[in-house]
Amino acid sequence: MAPVTAAERRRELGQQFRVDSVRMSAAAGSGHPTSSMSAADLLAVLVDGYLRFDFDDPRSPANDRLVFSKGHASVLLYAIYRAAGVVSDEEIVEYRRHDSMLEGHPTPLIPWVDVATGSLGQGLPIGVGMALAAKYLEKLPTRVWVLCGDSEMAEGSMWEAFEHAAHFGLDNLTAIIDCNRLGQRGETMVGWDLGVHVERARAFGWHAMEIEGHDVEAIDRAFAEAVATTGRPTVIVARTLKGRGVKAVENLNGFHGKALDDPEAAIAELGGQRDIRIDVAKPVVSAAQRQPAGPLELPRYDVGSEVATRKAYGDALAALGAARPDVVVVDGEVSNSTYAEIFAKAHPDRYFEMFIAEQQMIAAAVGLQAVGWRPFASTFSAFLARAYDFVRMAAVSRATLALCGSHAGVSIGEDGPSQMGLEDIACFRAVHGSTVLHPCDANQTARLVAAMAETDGISYLRTLRPNTPVIYAPDEEFDIGGSKTLRSSDEDEVALVAAGITVHEALKAADLLAEEGVAARVIDLYSIKPLDEQALVEAAAATRGRIVTVEDHWADGGLGDAVATALADTDEPLRVVKLAVREMPRSGKPAELLASAGIDAEHIAAAARRLVAARAPQATG
Amino acid sequence: MAPVTAAERRRELGQQFRVDSVRMSAAAGSGHPTSSMSAADLLAVLVDGYLRFDFDDPRSPANDRLVFSKGHASVLLYAIYRAAGVVSDEEIVEYRRHDSMLEGHPTPLIPWVDVATGSLGQGLPIGVGMALAAKYLEKLPTRVWVLCGDSEMAEGSMWEAFEHAAHFGLDNLTAIIDCNRLGQRGETMVGWDLGVHVERARAFGWHAMEIEGHDVEAIDRAFAEAVATTGRPTVIVARTLKGRGVKAVENLNGFHGKALDDPEAAIAELGGQRDIRIDVAKPVVSAAQRQPAGPLELPRYDVGSEVATRKAYGDALAALGAARPDVVVVDGEVSNSTYAEIFAKAHPDRYFEMFIAEQQMIAAAVGLQAVGWRPFASTFSAFLARAYDFVRMAAVSRATLALCGSHAGVSIGEDGPSQMGLEDIACFRAVHGSTVLHPCDANQTARLVAAMAETDGISYLRTLRPNTPVIYAPDEEFDIGGSKTLRSSDEDEVALVAAGITVHEALKAADLLAEEGVAARVIDLYSIKPLDEQALVEAAAATRGRIVTVEDHWADGGLGDAVATALADTDEPLRVVKLAVREMPRSGKPAELLASAGIDAEHIAAAARRLVAARAPQATG
Repeated sequence: MAPVTAAERRRELGQQFRVDSVRMSAAAGSGHPTSSMSAADLLAVLVDGYLRFDFDDPRSPANDRLVFSKGHASVLLYAIYRAAGVVSDEEIVEYRRHDSMLEGHPTPLIPWVDVATGSLGQGLPIGVGMALAAKYLEKLPTRVWVLCGDSEMAEGSMWEAFEHAAHFGLDNLTAIIDCNRLGQRGETMVGWDLGVHVERARAFGWHAMEIEGHDVEAIDRAFAEAVATTGRPTVIVARTLKGRGVKAVENLNGFHGKALDDPEAAIAELGGQRDIRIDVAKPVVSAAQRQPAGPLELPRYDVGSEVATRKAYGDALAALGAARPDVVVVDGEVSNSTYAEIFAKAHPDRYFEMFIAEQQMIAAAVGLQAVGWRPFASTFSAFLARAYDFVRMAAVSRATLALCGSHAGVSIGEDGPSQMGLEDIACFRAVHGSTVLHPCDANQTARLVAAMAETDGISYLRTLRPNTPVIYAPDEEFDIGGSKTLRSSDEDEVALVAAGITVHEALKAADLLAEEGVAARVIDLYSIKPLDEQALVEAAAATRGRIVTVEDHWADGGLGDAVATALADTDEPLRVVKLAVREMPRSGKPAELLASAGIDAEHIAAAARRLVAARAPQATG
Repeated sequence: MAPVTAAERRRELGQQFRVDSVRMSAAAGSGHPTSSMSAADLLAVLVDGYLRFDFDDPRSPANDRLVFSKGHASVLLYAIYRAAGVVSDEEIVEYRRHDSMLEGHPTPLIPWVDVATGSLGQGLPIGVGMALAAKYLEKLPTRVWVLCGDSEMAEGSMWEAFEHAAHFGLDNLTAIIDCNRLGQRGETMVGWDLGVHVERARAFGWHAMEIEGHDVEAIDRAFAEAVATTGRPTVIVARTLKGRGVKAVENLNGFHGKALDDPEAAIAELGGQRDIRIDVAKPVVSAAQRQPAGPLELPRYDVGSEVATRKAYGDALAALGAARPDVVVVDGEVSNSTYAEIFAKAHPDRYFEMFIAEQQMIAAAVGLQAVGWRPFASTFSAFLARAYDFVRMAAVSRATLALCGSHAGVSIGEDGPSQMGLEDIACFRAVHGSTVLHPCDANQTARLVAAMAETDGISYLRTLRPNTPVIYAPDEEFDIGGSKTLRSSDEDEVALVAAGITVHEALKAADLLAEEGVAARVIDLYSIKPLDEQALVEAAAATRGRIVTVEDHWADGGLGDAVATALADTDEPLRVVKLAVREMPRSGKPAELLASAGIDAEHIAAAARRLVAARAPQATG
């Protein structure tokens, strides 16, 4: 047999990827074969010549990372796995079955997949986080390769990634744009005008080139040029044909996201099934041992002093950074408001400024945690909404992220409703596997920040702008899933359930009620998810179901809903009154706004009084 | 007195804006005077020479639109209002007071403000929507002027706006970037390298120029050039000084978002208070009378047939478009999945393709409604999460938007969790003033689409990928806030509360239970917000609190929480069991995934059986 050139082998490998893409989607009856066929040659050259990856040690930072930002091309990724010998021929045709790890879009159920993709425009910004880790934290000469679709270039998050990658000089990052021209329902805005992508990328500070995406020699040269480029990231804009190699679908609209009508004919046209095996190159470097964690010395605040919980977040984060060398912090250009700046000053080598680009901020955190770092990300709670799809997808990625949203609720005062996080509790409760925390004092905040660093999944801490009284001693402990009963007696006639700023209002309300002879239990429900159901059930039992919930948040999906749900299976008929923000707030002083929203001490006391009075006739029953 | 030149008058006007910015923030003790002072000359020339706006008829489409994308420069906007004579000197110093319409960031509480800003990166994409309306719907030669900050150029949404504005050839749109170099906590990524912004804008297809932002003659020439430019939008990149004119703060870091320390000295340095009045030019055109609505002929589906609710959405939307000339539609490049394409084919002149740019899609809808159109926006329910901050802000804008999220829940099947909307009910319930609808059949969907067109605020319709049986007759009526009790008897021992796909599972469960002699009430809670509390309270009373809620959604913040909250003040002790998706779904067939999530008929019946059995000893009690 004549020796096979690299180019010949890669061409054949590309055809094998196409055939396997057709086979998998035919077996499943769905999938995106045409979107995979366009990128087959690009990936054949990458995995046969450039990618360095140890399939036996996929989490090692010494590996290159490969991210399919166009996650719908999953059959191409799985075809690579078969060629690499880590997935069998039997397994690939179980694609999309309920018991297969080869899901419709890649997820980390697959050991070699770092992050879930499938919501377009996320893979490249996540790759920025991975490249930051390699260049600045690991200081390893590994590379991050991201396969992008041309449709997803319309997502603003891609341009956040472009600007940040250039800003940080990420020459270890290569983006490959598979310009097959056709989106789901027609041509993209740019079509095959590849120069547009190139010009834009250059304007954003990247090294950019245009190539024929089915010419394996041109692809090889492009990758070599990317590797040789220093000081800035490289994008390879590749002209490709959607459905390349199968006339019935090639470069035709209307075949997105569908199995081919005649897979047998297509496979024949592609030259039949192949069984080429490739040895993906192993890393040539090894990752440094991470430093072990040291003792944690949290900040301590005097009871009775006034400290903002956001300030305590910054203090605690800096302390955590001293104890744990794996903690890294990103912030959205508001570190002097969230107080992430305290960490930034203490540990500048582990702080990345993400500017006003919340999607990139969360994506960077996802990328950082994928390679073993422990990221904390902060901005105003209102503006975390900007990155909600990234948080949703982070849950699909089984990511561990600690998020902090400051300036929650109407208590921020004069800046007005655009700056007030009022839907954050609802949104973060709805994230799969999440933890939602809302402290009311500085010592509690510090303890919860420490707990977040030990919590898997996505945890969210909601902090306040104004100073609040320190009511807990520095040594008080706070479990995730716990609560604190701040007032209680055998005579409790009503329970006040609060978190954050409303804890202080509830305490004042309890004082007002006590003056009138009404004993009110006060529960600080700082852990909104998971939630201390036992404390709530006991409170309901003690007060014959008379509970006032009070939150600086919209009425739907927040603390009140969580409490109502926790009590929806109890022996006691319920008289739960939910106090929450119900009208659009305006500017004003915090106290004015709490009063106007009906969530201050006076309104809590009034609600409690009404509850107690309504049941008075039964008082001895 | 010597005649004053335009340039002299404008320079003085700029100084007046600065003085008033200082005065307002001094009176409030907060605000962003330095961010306003940088843009004062730009706005002086705009309002004194270019803007055409009738303050007595602010909603008229004949007006130019002025959007402060950098909403924190609110004192500059309010200074313009004083100069225009629509706000008094007394009113401006009430800035940020609780009873003032002059909030910390502009909102439509002010009659001349179209949309709320203050979440950066939103004003320009909203301006794209307004410019689309003017150019393609109104066909009026009006202009949209958007003042942008340089910090917000880091937001990807700005680049979505850049690409879309160029794609649609919006030569009626002018962006003004106030490049004062300094963000909240330091320099922007680009600083004063104005050429970077210019190059990027040109690469995105804009006419772009760089000017000195305090040179009123250069500013005048730039606006003239913008007006004269055809075929593409114009961006004016202006080099400015933050805090311009007051040495204590000019071009210095650390003075963002703060009142000046010595306002009196600053006012003196700026030449003292002025009282220049300007006559803002009136529109030279008048808006066409809108066509009146005609009769609505909704699609009708045969009971017993199988139709996807997403398909009914598209059919109904096209019918609505025929009846109502004010209905416009935007979609995120998935119109063949959401079925918005049916409208697009029927009414191509009122359909705008937004490609895969969900933030721009929602922003365009906000801009369209601001000038009197009735937008419907659609994409996968999962991907609406991408635009959540835009929806949040739309509520602050008091916007009326109809949103449709298709492919909700695990019932989509093989595509896997990245494509499944599982947090959408929670998120949209938490939007202020929202309506959340989740139909289970095609006739119900059509009726609800029609109802959305009559509903103020933000309404959300959740549709399904698979076909579902048509169970309602075409003439059945569905009120927002209503429900349908599909099974009921005097013997009901348990109630099953469902919406969407789970209605059909609940019906099957009721059949299973009936075979065992257990009567189950079945409630179709298609209106999740507002919600039919009465029907739920009656169900609780009839079943002694035994209720199974079942939803194809995460367990937190969805239908189950809404039901628990509605029942949290009842005489009946509750035994509510919430069935919802609790583990991360995988790929698979819809039926497999419903079973795996524990929300199919078998699981509903099992939960109901357990509830009935648990209370059996009390059955005659």
